[in-house]
Amino acid sequence: MATSTRVAVVGAGPAGLAVANILSRKGIDCVLLEEQSRGYIEQRPRAGFIEEWAVRGLEQHGLADRLLGSAPRHGGFEFRFEGARHPFDYAELTGQHHFVYPQQLLVTDLVAQYVDGGGEVAFGVQDVTLHGIESERPAVEYRDGAGERRLECDFVAGCDGAQGVTRTYVGGRVLRHDYGIGWLALLAEAPPSADGVVFGIHPRGFAAHMARTPTVTRFYLQCPPGDDEDNWPHERVWAELHERLGVPGGAIAEGPLIEKRVLDMHNYVTEPMARGRLFLAGESAHLVAPIAAKGLNLALHDAFHLTDAIEAHYSGDDGPLARYTETCLARVWQYQEFSQWLSDIFHSSTTDPPPDPFRARLAQARLRRLLGSRAAAAAFAEIYLGKAADF
Amino acid sequence: MATSTRVAVVGAGPAGLAVANILSRKGIDCVLLEEQSRGYIEQRPRAGFIEEWAVRGLEQHGLADRLLGSAPRHGGFEFRFEGARHPFDYAELTGQHHFVYPQQLLVTDLVAQYVDGGGEVAFGVQDVTLHGIESERPAVEYRDGAGERRLECDFVAGCDGAQGVTRTYVGGRVLRHDYGIGWLALLAEAPPSADGVVFGIHPRGFAAHMARTPTVTRFYLQCPPGDDEDNWPHERVWAELHERLGVPGGAIAEGPLIEKRVLDMHNYVTEPMARGRLFLAGESAHLVAPIAAKGLNLALHDAFHLTDAIEAHYSGDDGPLARYTETCLARVWQYQEFSQWLSDIFHSSTTDPPPDPFRARLAQARLRRLLGSRAAAAAFAEIYLGKAADF
Repeated sequence: MATSTRVAVVGAGPAGLAVANILSRKGIDCVLLEEQSRGYIEQRPRAGFIEEWAVRGLEQHGLADRLLGSAPRHGGFEFRFEGARHPFDYAELTGQHHFVYPQQLLVTDLVAQYVDGGGEVAFGVQDVTLHGIESERPAVEYRDGAGERRLECDFVAGCDGAQGVTRTYVGGRVLRHDYGIGWLALLAEAPPSADGVVFGIHPRGFAAHMARTPTVTRFYLQCPPGDDEDNWPHERVWAELHERLGVPGGAIAEGPLIEKRVLDMHNYVTEPMARGRLFLAGESAHLVAPIAAKGLNLALHDAFHLTDAIEAHYSGDDGPLARYTETCLARVWQYQEFSQWLSDIFHSSTTDPPPDPFRARLAQARLRRLLGSRAAAAAFAEIYLGKAADF
Repeated sequence: MATSTRVAVVGAGPAGLAVANILSRKGIDCVLLEEQSRGYIEQRPRAGFIEEWAVRGLEQHGLADRLLGSAPRHGGFEFRFEGARHPFDYAELTGQHHFVYPQQLLVTDLVAQYVDGGGEVAFGVQDVTLHGIESERPAVEYRDGAGERRLECDFVAGCDGAQGVTRTYVGGRVLRHDYGIGWLALLAEAPPSADGVVFGIHPRGFAAHMARTPTVTRFYLQCPPGDDEDNWPHERVWAELHERLGVPGGAIAEGPLIEKRVLDMHNYVTEPMARGRLFLAGESAHLVAPIAAKGLNLALHDAFHLTDAIEAHYSGDDGPLARYTETCLARVWQYQEFSQWLSDIFHSSTTDPPPDPFRARLAQARLRRLLGSRAAAAAFAEIYLGKAADF
């Protein structure tokens, strides 16, 4: 069965949901297609730190009500190293905050707002293929419970993530970087052990603490890439967290571990992010390791620019679509650069495996300057919050 | 023949000359020993950019009269890439300048002031050895025209550079980093082609222009490490300089090449910088590739701290001597870190040999942020001038 729309949005993660919601609000017809069920995507834990400019972008389209009403704001974190605490207040330097709002809540909000607004969506679609993307009338073919479908459109927004199919249609080149580092991501049924975020820099490896709720706390532990979660029983996890994050007067509260997942730290960037009438947004186009909590923010950045560019097209201006890759990648590369810079601080002091000692000293100098120089701190705060108006 | 003094200063480069001059002015007896002739060290071309805090340090000891009277001040430079000029004004961001004063002029001044002040110096000494550096009364043995000499002292200041002997007595560990990059250092009998310093970032490799006098200009060309100067005939040098540095309205003026020397970009840092009564200063302790013009400034930083610490010792306070390594290396590591950060900007876009394209994009992002963000520019300017009061 063939239907038609202006924009076919493939993938209902934050990028696709933001694109679909914003297009609807602009009065541009679209259809949202998602391989998973609604229940699944509303439960899937991912990122949780949204930069203020991105929150304001959502707010501008009426998409941030619940977030603004309930998300805690973070304006600082704490480095811990050599047994001492070193607070870092970036809100004071920028006047802006992170909004701490788990991605599945944002996804739940955006699905509800799209559906409530009468948006057209199909969950559980299979075997998505794209056709005629270099023509003026491409099509998305897929299967649903009723059989084969064909959706004709003016544009395809490829928002189906790292594992999605849309990115395979772009061609171009994919630039990759592998950190050679793993993070064991943990959720514990334990109260927070500090306000907000703690970054522990330790010879045994990086560790982090992120307060979530009064009863659940997120932790990360640097581990070998590709490590098996089974190598990390309860006792070992807590021994390492105490060792790497504990300071006098700042003990770490324990609790049952309800999630254990090894993340391999790697990045990629697709150049260009478009081909013909197909435009990628979010992780279909670029993945940034979660070192600086940038991925969700980049997905929203793409969504804002893509919807503006499509709107401009229907007003007769194809300039923004022509500049889409350049506009998006400027911020992507800033965030990739920052994530790598921060990764050196986080990971270079590890003695197992033994580091390059010269490189370890450089990372220590970088950290010392960040804590000792107001100019260095201001530059860090700006990019940590993505505040710069223009990259 | 045995003589004695309070401080034996081995090496009459900027570090040793500053130490000897300042000690003399503090009324602390010293003897300065140098393997080369006075004529040789007064001609030897090396660095030429002195940071304002270092000039003020020399001035405070009455050692900067000629420098202050004649050295041009630089407060900006120009990046050139993709055929365009991008001026960067760091004086406006810091209120401070570089003083451009070739090292051989500073050496000439410091020798004259030391000798004129009645300072004891021996040029052309040979076979320097150290004895009893872990005792309270070490000695330096050497030969001069008159035969074997033994100089007993309270302290040895090891200022004899990368090729000197004093560093071999410290033990400890030497942390090294090799950039895997060469710079062809050139002096041309040509008028300057721009005001001051130009950094050219180009797929064919980094290049730089540094105005010196109305008739002599310094240039650098990135080349393979260990390259032979003979691979760089006149025609090739100028073809590369035009290609890498030329911009519309900014042609490069040619002239005969009066110096051609390949520098291999590498660094080392000795930890600790002292053993017993031997204290290293300058390149005997640490070498930083000339990427950010930091070496001479670090030599002066060491000299200021060593002379203060020796003075404190004679007032009964050994604390500053005990902290000497830590005090000096804090700035050393900041400058090493900055040099590497800047090296990535200078060298990562080179396509011969082909770079890691991910890394090249990170370097481009870094440069773009530096030029687009006032906060990033201010942090850069502070460390480029070494302005931070305390690292």
